[in-house]
Amino acid sequence: MLKISAKSHSLPISPIRRLVPLAEAAAARGTHIYKLNIGQPDIHTPIEAVEAVQAIQDHIFPYSHSAGLLPYRQKLVEYYRKNNISLDVEDIIVTLGGTEAAQMAMLICANPGEEILVPEPFYANYNTFAASYDTILVPVPSTIENDFALPPREEFLKRITSRTRAILICNPNNPTGHLYTQEEMQMLADMASYHNLYLISDEVYREFCYDGTKQISALSLKGIDENVIVIDSVSKRYSMCGVRLGNIVSRNKEVIAAALKLAQARLSPPYLAQIAASAAMEAPQKYYDDVVAEYTARRDCLVEELNKIPGVYCPKPQGAFYTMAHFPVDDCHKFSSWLLEEFSYKGATVQLAPAAGFYATKGKGTQEARIAYVLCKEDLLAACECLREALKVYPGRIDE
Amino acid sequence: MLKISAKSHSLPISPIRRLVPLAEAAAARGTHIYKLNIGQPDIHTPIEAVEAVQAIQDHIFPYSHSAGLLPYRQKLVEYYRKNNISLDVEDIIVTLGGTEAAQMAMLICANPGEEILVPEPFYANYNTFAASYDTILVPVPSTIENDFALPPREEFLKRITSRTRAILICNPNNPTGHLYTQEEMQMLADMASYHNLYLISDEVYREFCYDGTKQISALSLKGIDENVIVIDSVSKRYSMCGVRLGNIVSRNKEVIAAALKLAQARLSPPYLAQIAASAAMEAPQKYYDDVVAEYTARRDCLVEELNKIPGVYCPKPQGAFYTMAHFPVDDCHKFSSWLLEEFSYKGATVQLAPAAGFYATKGKGTQEARIAYVLCKEDLLAACECLREALKVYPGRIDE
Repeated sequence: MLKISAKSHSLPISPIRRLVPLAEAAAARGTHIYKLNIGQPDIHTPIEAVEAVQAIQDHIFPYSHSAGLLPYRQKLVEYYRKNNISLDVEDIIVTLGGTEAAQMAMLICANPGEEILVPEPFYANYNTFAASYDTILVPVPSTIENDFALPPREEFLKRITSRTRAILICNPNNPTGHLYTQEEMQMLADMASYHNLYLISDEVYREFCYDGTKQISALSLKGIDENVIVIDSVSKRYSMCGVRLGNIVSRNKEVIAAALKLAQARLSPPYLAQIAASAAMEAPQKYYDDVVAEYTARRDCLVEELNKIPGVYCPKPQGAFYTMAHFPVDDCHKFSSWLLEEFSYKGATVQLAPAAGFYATKGKGTQEARIAYVLCKEDLLAACECLREALKVYPGRIDE
Repeated sequence: MLKISAKSHSLPISPIRRLVPLAEAAAARGTHIYKLNIGQPDIHTPIEAVEAVQAIQDHIFPYSHSAGLLPYRQKLVEYYRKNNISLDVEDIIVTLGGTEAAQMAMLICANPGEEILVPEPFYANYNTFAASYDTILVPVPSTIENDFALPPREEFLKRITSRTRAILICNPNNPTGHLYTQEEMQMLADMASYHNLYLISDEVYREFCYDGTKQISALSLKGIDENVIVIDSVSKRYSMCGVRLGNIVSRNKEVIAAALKLAQARLSPPYLAQIAASAAMEAPQKYYDDVVAEYTARRDCLVEELNKIPGVYCPKPQGAFYTMAHFPVDDCHKFSSWLLEEFSYKGATVQLAPAAGFYATKGKGTQEARIAYVLCKEDLLAACECLREALKVYPGRIDE
């Protein structure tokens, strides 16, 4: 009998996709949906990028170098230098979004059956990348009570085995918004160095830090140049999620040599995207400042409103544009489904991303949801009002 | 000790890349290089695509649907309909180039250690995709003496085991240019059906058929709808290799469901590419006719000139824009290296793709090279003159 492979049969469904059919049905009934579930920002792409695309005069859209166009890689070196990170062009391979960088990192670090430690909750798509290569993700618990700070050292240590190859973090964190401190980063560096582990750091939200904070890149940690692999992307930085352009960075020459071979097999990163991203780098500082100011205002508004709702708790994260919130309900997946299927207030409802899908440990995060604050303040206020009213009547409400 | 994974350590180097350092050194010495090694055509991208990109007015370059923009998928359905292939939108997932379609197909068909039969020589990057997933490619020999026709049935049958999951072909073929006949396609269909195997058909050169021939798509074979998975791409069709846009096609709903989950994990195919490719589909029939006429003339010129050189044999393939040629030399890799390191004629030399890298069986193809006829006739003539002169003085010449 014709069968698909066992691993493709068991591929997880992304937690941000699972409710899409219900949302589509609700929209078809005329209900407006405040989409707090997804990371597609409404921020404009820098005008420089749009104009660069409009100005393209090529007769052919050709392959670029497998590692990326040299001028683009040189501009990336300059970009990192401005972030106090010193790199050579050879340390960077341009990829098909942050996704390909993450896939390459996993494939390069671990053989099938080998393990990568990752603080949970974590970016759910890591599950699919790992499943593709039969890599095992070992969750290390962080909790909403502790504002999703890095789990203590002993939680990592007791999970390190002879099969452990890497620690994977996302900083600032998707889904929690947590921004790792200098102490947390140093602890990761110490563990990576002592136990000969790769430190894979997904830094695609580098620019999204609030309250005067600044991201500490794994590339700035001393003494672990060989261990660090950074996943990066222009998707969020320039609000150009659709161009599919990222890059993998490492000062470990063996890692980059393997990444280059993988890059050569898929021939080329996207050409038009490199034109757009190259131009986006010319955006003035004001572009970034305005974006940070806007997200700070949105976060403040969202977190304040959520915490006003009886039984809801939401930490105030300092990075990315997500937060996890605790809801006084039996199960956030049921609650989220009910919001789409049964509820509306003033003709509208809310789409959440139930948090369980961001946890690898069964039963965790059932009372939490990830909320993306990519909508304008007015919509965030209306969404919170919806949630407040919904929790008054939701049959699965639990008063703790 | 920090180590990269065994499989990334042993990733093959693409045969078209191996000589790049020698070519760069030759170019640095001022030698002109006729690049017969690569598949980057000099044909213009349809003007409709360039103008569509120039006309982009978006404020944001957003994610598209993971399966691709619906209007673009609808246009693909229409494109296949014009090729007498009836499909629904749901049978198509838009991918990051033909590469991602091939990767998805392999991952979906086979578990680690399971086998895919593939006529050799074959597209060398399949090796890397398979290695990433620990899928085993089992070569089935085709030969230059037989113009790289499909190997006879018994050659397949004796390699089918309990671990065999699929047969993978490329039609028209890269690297051989072979265009599979109705009889060959029917034989593949019969074997796939009888042995419950997937038939993965890489059809990215569909438009490149000469002498009045037409490609027979695996999607047009009767009775094996569930078995067929097609890999497709706009790279060659519209000479837009750099946009990185392809698609996977199957009427098998389980295959498409798995492909969609993989697609959702990497979020979105490239947006700008879909704008460009969508517009390229508006190119008039004359665009295709001109391209076919140009490649026919180039092939005729190249094959005639090569066969005039004593000791060289080159079949006259009917598809794609490659051919394999036999050279009267000890080893085509040595010959190709020597061409770049030691030889020049009228200030120029030739870069070939030694064929051994397209064979999985050790020792095969050592006297063959793949030649891409993507240069204009004048350059092809000059390149053949170079080869003729080189073979007069190459120290490793063998007279058979």
